[in-house]
Order: sequence, then C-alpha cells, then structure tokens
Amino acid sequence: MSLSEVLEATQHAIRENPATAAVSFAARHQLVPNTNTLVDVTIRDHKLTVDEPPVLGGADTAANPVEYALAALGSCHAITYQAWAAKLGIQLDSVAVHVDGDVDLHGFFGLDDSTRPGFGDIRVRVDVTGPESSQRYAELKRQVDEHCPVLDLFRHQTPAKTELFVNP
Amino acid sequence: MSLSEVLEATQHAIRENPATAAVSFAARHQLVPNTNTLVDVTIRDHKLTVDEPPVLGGADTAANPVEYALAALGSCHAITYQAWAAKLGIQLDSVAVHVDGDVDLHGFFGLDDSTRPGFGDIRVRVDVTGPESSQRYAELKRQVDEHCPVLDLFRHQTPAKTELFVNP
Repeated sequence: MSLSEVLEATQHAIRENPATAAVSFAARHQLVPNTNTLVDVTIRDHKLTVDEPPVLGGADTAANPVEYALAALGSCHAITYQAWAAKLGIQLDSVAVHVDGDVDLHGFFGLDDSTRPGFGDIRVRVDVTGPESSQRYAELKRQVDEHCPVLDLFRHQTPAKTELFVNP
Repeated sequence: MSLSEVLEATQHAIRENPATAAVSFAARHQLVPNTNTLVDVTIRDHKLTVDEPPVLGGADTAANPVEYALAALGSCHAITYQAWAAKLGIQLDSVAVHVDGDVDLHGFFGLDDSTRPGFGDIRVRVDVTGPESSQRYAELKRQVDEHCPVLDLFRHQTPAKTELFVNP
C-alpha cells in the first residue's frame, strides 16, 4: 500500500469508530548507576540513551534531553510534511528540516527567577524539492503548521502532572 | 570531579560572565528516500533515527516523534533530579521516570478542528530511592518541577517560527 492508502485506511477506521483515535504513548527512563547523567530509555521495543556534555556533568555519549526535544520536533515536522503531502496529493521529492533552539542556563540553575529553564526561542527551517507550484507547497506548509503534533506541543501549553514516590 | 563540583564550576563561570549561559542547540533531519516515514537525525556527532508504526505508514524501525518527545521529558526530568540533588546536597541512590501521554489522532489528521494535534495530557511518575527524609525529597521535587527545561517546554508556550524553502 502507498502512504496515502495507509493513512486513508487509518482515517477510515477512525471515522467508523472514533474511539480508535485515542492513543497513548509511554517511555521509561532509568538513570544508569555510577554515572552522572547517563539515562537508559525504553520505548516499546526501542532503546536509546541520553547524556549531557561535560560542562553539564556528563560524558557526552549521546545527545542531551533538549536536543532530543528538537529531534522530536524536526522529525515530527518532516513526517507531517510527508503525510499531509500524501493526503493533499502533492508530490514531494525530498524533505530536510533544520531546528535551532536557544536556552539560557540561568533558568536551569535557578540563578535568575525571571529566566525560564526551557527554550526561549526555536527556529525551524524546512527545505523541500518537488515539481509542484510554490502555491501548492505554501498550502502544504499551512496544513503542517496546523497539524504537526510536536509543533503543537512546543507552541501551546500541555497539562503535565508530576508525582514522586520515595521507595525503601 | 564530582557532579556537584562540575555544576558548581559551570555556575561559577556563568556568575563571572553571564553571557556564557546563553547556549544554542541544533538538530538536522532528512527524510530517507524511498521510505514513508524514516528520518535520519544528526545532533553534533550523534546520530539517531525516527520512524512511525505501520498504522501511521512506517516500518516501526525506531520510536516515533511523540515518543521521542516523551523521552526528552523523562530523561530531562531524571537528570534534573540528579543535578538538583547534587546542588542541594541530597543523596539520591536511584531515579526512574515513567512518562505517559495521550494523543487524539483526530487532530493530526485534521478530522476535527477542535482537537489539538499534540498531547492532550501527560503524566510523569518518578521513583527514587535514598536515605533522606521524605521532606528532603519533596523539596527536591519542588525544585525539579520548577527548573526542568523540558517540563517547562511542555507546560508553557514556546515561540517556534517555521520557514519553508522550495528548492529547484
């Protein structure tokens, strides 16, 4: 099946039974013993690791959490371009996405209460190639900006509850 | 150097020269030719891949973008526990973080304009062990909830500008 056929089948299933659209995702994380900042992550059958550069106490064996956040945004954006191009019947020959973000470490270290710990600004640059008119790609951009899940996460508040359990 | 010594040195450098606190991060992404949803990601010297499960058109060779977003949150949370425990002089023997998030696919597919494409709700469960009083760990939780960069990203709006370039 082509991508547009797969996505049409999924949308058809949702229209038939709207409850199938409600999906949950999960990730488990364990700080690796005898390291400062190495984290093992398990997502279904997929494993990855996260670390920090030396200036933040790590050994730089992997990208750090805010870099993973940028990767979530950039990959989501690339896939949403691909999916919405298929949905709109727009031919897309290649998609590259470059994401930059700025952090002021005064926030993380609690050195200035007026500085947020997260990103102050994010820039997403998308480069595409393909045979369609620039109007068609501009329409694709409008749809992607409205429907990219991780862009929505960045641009809007999301309720996130935290609970701590202290175990013996 | 211990973690608290490294972090104290970094904070000292920031106090001496506040401009050193302004840091930028970047990630580059390329949709892999002849795949539906496989994305190659480059972050400095680190490489990773992102994919989608079959129902979203992919081959499930890697976690998907919203799962990477959860991994960014969970790993950031674990490392912020470790860093702030070092900063506050609180002994922490282990940290595990479990993150769950709900998505309603009506949003991504544009099937319902009132449904956001991103997460509707996120739950973060932290399990720690260590010899300190529960009051000390509750104080640690308060500081982490205030200073975790990716939790801040989830809980608050972040400006994210997108630009599209159509190349020949």
